[in-house]
Amino acid sequence: MRQSRRGQVDPFIVMDVMEAARRAEASGRHIIHMEVGQPSTPAPAAALKALGQELAEPLGYTVALGLPALREGIAGLYRRWYGVDLDPARVVVTPGSSGAFLLAFAALFDAGDRVAVGEPGYPSYRQILRAMSVEPVGMQTRAENRYQPVPADIPEGVQGVMIASPGNPSGTMLDRQALAALVERTQEIGAALISDEIYHGLDYGQRAVSALELTDDVVVINSFSKYFSMTGWRVGWLVVPPDMVRTMDRLAANMFICAPHASQVAALAALTPESEAEAQANLAVYAENRRMMLERLPAMGFDRIAPPDGAFYVYADVSALTHDSAALAADILDRAGVAVTPGVDFDPVRGAGTLRFSYARSSGDIAEGLDRLARYMAGR
Amino acid sequence: MRQSRRGQVDPFIVMDVMEAARRAEASGRHIIHMEVGQPSTPAPAAALKALGQELAEPLGYTVALGLPALREGIAGLYRRWYGVDLDPARVVVTPGSSGAFLLAFAALFDAGDRVAVGEPGYPSYRQILRAMSVEPVGMQTRAENRYQPVPADIPEGVQGVMIASPGNPSGTMLDRQALAALVERTQEIGAALISDEIYHGLDYGQRAVSALELTDDVVVINSFSKYFSMTGWRVGWLVVPPDMVRTMDRLAANMFICAPHASQVAALAALTPESEAEAQANLAVYAENRRMMLERLPAMGFDRIAPPDGAFYVYADVSALTHDSAALAADILDRAGVAVTPGVDFDPVRGAGTLRFSYARSSGDIAEGLDRLARYMAGR
Ligand SMILES: Cc1ncc(COP(=O)(O)O)c(C=O)c1O
Ligand SMILES: Cc1ncc(COP(=O)(O)O)c(C=O)c1O
Repeated sequence: MRQSRRGQVDPFIVMDVMEAARRAEASGRHIIHMEVGQPSTPAPAAALKALGQELAEPLGYTVALGLPALREGIAGLYRRWYGVDLDPARVVVTPGSSGAFLLAFAALFDAGDRVAVGEPGYPSYRQILRAMSVEPVGMQTRAENRYQPVPADIPEGVQGVMIASPGNPSGTMLDRQALAALVERTQEIGAALISDEIYHGLDYGQRAVSALELTDDVVVINSFSKYFSMTGWRVGWLVVPPDMVRTMDRLAANMFICAPHASQVAALAALTPESEAEAQANLAVYAENRRMMLERLPAMGFDRIAPPDGAFYVYADVSALTHDSAALAADILDRAGVAVTPGVDFDPVRGAGTLRFSYARSSGDIAEGLDRLARYMAGR
Repeated sequence: MRQSRRGQVDPFIVMDVMEAARRAEASGRHIIHMEVGQPSTPAPAAALKALGQELAEPLGYTVALGLPALREGIAGLYRRWYGVDLDPARVVVTPGSSGAFLLAFAALFDAGDRVAVGEPGYPSYRQILRAMSVEPVGMQTRAENRYQPVPADIPEGVQGVMIASPGNPSGTMLDRQALAALVERTQEIGAALISDEIYHGLDYGQRAVSALELTDDVVVINSFSKYFSMTGWRVGWLVVPPDMVRTMDRLAANMFICAPHASQVAALAALTPESEAEAQANLAVYAENRRMMLERLPAMGFDRIAPPDGAFYVYADVSALTHDSAALAADILDRAGVAVTPGVDFDPVRGAGTLRFSYARSSGDIAEGLDRLARYMAGR
């Protein structure tokens, strides 16, 4: 069968780690999972309860932009979290933030356009852009800029700039001033700014700033996946400028018909105070995990780490230890029984010298993982 | 905000009908819905029960290709329905068949490629192709060919051909011979054949033939939406040639991460004999509805209809009555209280002279709708 050029996107190197971890577990070994990018906690109880009640009704297609009550609920979240008064008409519910990228890239960019993406960064930005015939242009961000782009990093002549704060894998944030500088610069050059805010709510000191606090001329993307522990449910959203709603409605109706109905019902109930209390309890676990990570990783030799402002990742520069992070990750799995992610998926240039440690699991798991890593590093 | 050219896809004209119907209902009128493209029945009881049991576990991301048991279950369906022995490795679970189109078009076609689509046909083929910078090329099919393309309709130099049997809006099928002729011709010209089989299971005499019965060199698309009454759940699938699985895996991981987990659990339980019995009971209702439609529509003046082999639609040529099917549909809604779909969304050339009647609702609704239509036609 014929295949397209654009369909030939890069493999995920982390899949090799996951497959090796699976094999190790199948052979009876106990593995600590620091490679995962998702909570191990279930969706909020209220979300599951609401869904259970709704199951009596046929769950047909919803309208393309999402259940009106959910769009209102999401607008309410902007009021509570950021003090931003948002018209629910500007909220577009999508099948995960992944679906939001597909929609945003189709609505904003034509084939051959160029979009700047930060390196290190979430690999799917690049791959989805390629699959849609848009050219990703890597911005090699610098440690002294918290691995976040600054205006000078934005290449000439791009049609779009993709940012993420807190970022994956870095966990670093753009503060209000850094974000404002990027807003200003993208407006100056007429590039669309897309702000991935999927790790909002998961911060440990400074509150993450939404691009919507600074401008309406931005596409903001978020999701129920991380803060609300709802990865498998596939509900995300976009906030778009008023003049893009009609385009989004038509595109979403054709590309997705709608986000999963049952999941939308669950997501709506995730916006209640009791659900948010549950999410905050998960956050307290991450905070304790993060405290342990920051206390112990540097002491055992992982001392060049990005400022871990948010999300549930620590990104470490291990270029003093290896120039083959995939081999190092394989060795750590093999000898320490800890699965970690080599940086190659996130940064095609420097990723062979970096590792990402996730601390999304229980504190018991994280403590055990750190013990194993410490023994491994001591034995090197 | 900047917007792309490709994002400017056509509006759905049926939305105007639906909005008018909603307003009429809000003002207290009773409307019979013959415009809908989905069952009004719930997902099979076993599917809901299975989901209820699974809710105790966190539903994280599944692997990108879908739950292995679900892929096996789908392969089993090919054995039961078609006697085809299918390797489950070739099954890719997607967020609805809508997600399957996105994946197939990304994997098969580059920007600027041309893909033939039948007219009349499901409008989203065209719009998704456009949103991905692929050019849809309409094939005006003929009544004497059951509104299905024949090899001579396939334009020169296309990279792909999209077929659907039973089709939407026509409800007509390609028999084995007609399908074989299209398989042969597309192979001759090196075009990818994509077969949308979403209405399989919903047939009323001849059994729908799967392209997989004839060749492995095809991309087959299907879904739990229609036969299994699971539209809002957003689970569909692709069957691809063995050498495309790796590409699909990578694309799906980046574009969707996975299909909704809860919905995959429900879909797996929809493949049990008890669920299929429920689906067959729904089919019996459609069969009775179809019988009423075929008895009464021609008698009241809708006598130029496509052979309604499957799905739950009757497609009528009303060009003797009007050259503005949208206005006719509005008038039928206004004066008869029946919502029907004007053909313009399905056929940009001839759709102003056609209507689609859906009979997916209860037999009581359909009988009442037919009474109203008969009075309307008598009073014209
Ligand atoms: C930065 C970032 N954005 C987006 C996503 C996609 O998440 P989802 O599609 O579940 O909303 C992820 C998932 O790991 C991520 O890390
Ligand atoms: C012919 C055809 N294909 C595909 C679809 C999309 O269905 P889904 O995405 O729910 O699987 C529809 C929906 O009406 C359809 O009529």
